Amino acid sequence: MQRTVYLDNATTTAMDPKVLDAMKPYFFEWYGSPTHEYGHTFGLKAREALEKSREVVARSIGAKPEEIIFTSGGTESNNLAIKGLALANKEKRHLVTSRIEHTSVLNVIKSLEKTGFKASYINVDGEGFIDLEQLEDEINEETLLVSIQHANQEIGTIQDIEEIGKICEEKDVLFHVDAVQSFTKLPIDVEKMNIDLLSISAHKIHGPKGVGALYVGDGVKLKPLMDGGYNEFGVRPGTENVPGVVGFAKAIELVDEDQLENMRRLRDYLTDGLLEISDSRLNGPKGEKRLCNNVNITFRFVEGESVLLHLDIRGIIVTTGSACFSRSLQPSHVILALGLRHEDAHGSVRFSLSKYNTLEEMDYTIRNVREVVEQLRKISPVGR
Amino acid sequence: MQRTVYLDNATTTAMDPKVLDAMKPYFFEWYGSPTHEYGHTFGLKAREALEKSREVVARSIGAKPEEIIFTSGGTESNNLAIKGLALANKEKRHLVTSRIEHTSVLNVIKSLEKTGFKASYINVDGEGFIDLEQLEDEINEETLLVSIQHANQEIGTIQDIEEIGKICEEKDVLFHVDAVQSFTKLPIDVEKMNIDLLSISAHKIHGPKGVGALYVGDGVKLKPLMDGGYNEFGVRPGTENVPGVVGFAKAIELVDEDQLENMRRLRDYLTDGLLEISDSRLNGPKGEKRLCNNVNITFRFVEGESVLLHLDIRGIIVTTGSACFSRSLQPSHVILALGLRHEDAHGSVRFSLSKYNTLEEMDYTIRNVREVVEQLRKISPVGR
Repeated sequence: MQRTVYLDNATTTAMDPKVLDAMKPYFFEWYGSPTHEYGHTFGLKAREALEKSREVVARSIGAKPEEIIFTSGGTESNNLAIKGLALANKEKRHLVTSRIEHTSVLNVIKSLEKTGFKASYINVDGEGFIDLEQLEDEINEETLLVSIQHANQEIGTIQDIEEIGKICEEKDVLFHVDAVQSFTKLPIDVEKMNIDLLSISAHKIHGPKGVGALYVGDGVKLKPLMDGGYNEFGVRPGTENVPGVVGFAKAIELVDEDQLENMRRLRDYLTDGLLEISDSRLNGPKGEKRLCNNVNITFRFVEGESVLLHLDIRGIIVTTGSACFSRSLQPSHVILALGLRHEDAHGSVRFSLSKYNTLEEMDYTIRNVREVVEQLRKISPVGR
Repeated sequence: MQRTVYLDNATTTAMDPKVLDAMKPYFFEWYGSPTHEYGHTFGLKAREALEKSREVVARSIGAKPEEIIFTSGGTESNNLAIKGLALANKEKRHLVTSRIEHTSVLNVIKSLEKTGFKASYINVDGEGFIDLEQLEDEINEETLLVSIQHANQEIGTIQDIEEIGKICEEKDVLFHVDAVQSFTKLPIDVEKMNIDLLSISAHKIHGPKGVGALYVGDGVKLKPLMDGGYNEFGVRPGTENVPGVVGFAKAIELVDEDQLENMRRLRDYLTDGLLEISDSRLNGPKGEKRLCNNVNITFRFVEGESVLLHLDIRGIIVTTGSACFSRSLQPSHVILALGLRHEDAHGSVRFSLSKYNTLEEMDYTIRNVREVVEQLRKISPVGR
């Protein structure tokens, strides 16, 4: 039987079996509604689980439990943070973000621009680091919020969140961090980093899909995106997904430093091996300032989609361009922001590591990518 | 060991073990991203599961697959339907609803009223049926939408959706139905009933929490509540909860007529037994026009909360007032709309049946409710 090597961007969404074990009692036994504060034991068990999970999430980022709002995922968290803040604060109407944010940040801001908000998009350098001087310059009297991601979804670039937090504090503007990619992979301390709003998601850490959270710092006022019951401190209505948040908390508890160290080791091994292929280029930085589970390489003179399909036949699953946009075959806005040409953007292939990958899989991958790229170049219409 | 009889409003949220079995492959094996249309086998498996689930949901209400948008639950579906429509259609600024809708409909409409929309709240009679003449009278040139629930969340009253659909068609206004309570318990045919938007939820039918759907009829334009990727036909961004929607579809497939017939039988048996207690009153209608799994009784001269706590000690789990508002101890807006006095609203107890309940449990419940109510009345400060 052919092996399968999972290096797809969904690789971290393989749920850990221990997460399901933790969720099961809340599917089958303690499925009561946690809103019954004055109610019965059955509801109290659900409430206890909800609040215990909230504490686990809060502790993992240095927040207080009452600062954690559970949502349906990273996209909702980003929407609630930015749109919710914009709708609650109509005096200041300027937003600052970067050119390489996730679409659920960029498209929220573009949508607010249509309603009269102004926005500044900070440039990044060739490795994806945002221009801190430009950031400082762009913040003005009208600026309500700076929204900068912790680590990039495609090229793994880790921004200097502590430094950006300092700038925001000095300039007295609010600071939102999309930490969906970095959560549990990098240390996060919302106090030390001066973060006011922070988005995270469960399925990026082997937890369940459909669950996320938004940290909302004490005193930050949001307008809810949805109306209904008074769940989640009145910020997010709807029946609480208790099994989901229990699974989220369990996934956090299952993270350990050895896994991260192993991913860093595999990342560097895979990167070095792939860069031995001629006319290849690493997108994003090398080493410490790169997310432990991300490798993104442009193979010139080939299409990323062709590499993906040929690797699929060989049982190796990777992503090309921006996963969310694969369907449209548009070049990734992240790769383009680095200053690469359109044809190089098309040749980019992303390898995402998880705690389940092995060194032996890296060898298998390097060998097969080399063969596929060399084969494709032989038949490529784009001459070298 | 003491038995437990589950008659709480969460009773239908006990997940069916077969639902979990259906979800498992998508937690552990086919966890790829379904958005990779041009991508690899791994993503295609997820996509197939997503689209097969969409077909199951569509078929269950007489819709086309492309008219189904998956959401995070009933509250999001109601918000997306009403707010999404209101934001996409700014010429007509009048909404019609009833006084007994779920808070996720009422509070959305109240919130739109603050932005310049006008709303009419249709009265209900003593059994919770909305006044169809008033409904017809209230619809005017400015009316964008009529939003009426199929069955009530507290008293089980089933509205004549087909008749309301006819009125909406004649008056040429759009029609949204909150069918969260009735879905799979009553026949729904969006074509025959002239429904343009319909909200449903998975956890009300022994499916997973955190999953719902909105039917959006062909040609109905909505503004998304959230911005991000182009998932769900561009109406609902975010990583698709594939295990969740697979569980939703499985829960639909597990419904059968025998279960419904059994619930109807238990409902009538429980109702008759409880009404033998003196000074008790059924809230909502009897028989065919009541949801098969709902019993709601007011026991005069006692507090619903006290009945709930005493029954809890005896291992019987029920709900009082409106579940979502239990925390605030406010009288239910539904019971008040029936014309009951505040003190009678406080004495209302709701018993929700599921496919797992038995006739023997009904006997146990009737006996214990009688004892609890009689005991409480002996010590009640409110004399008879």
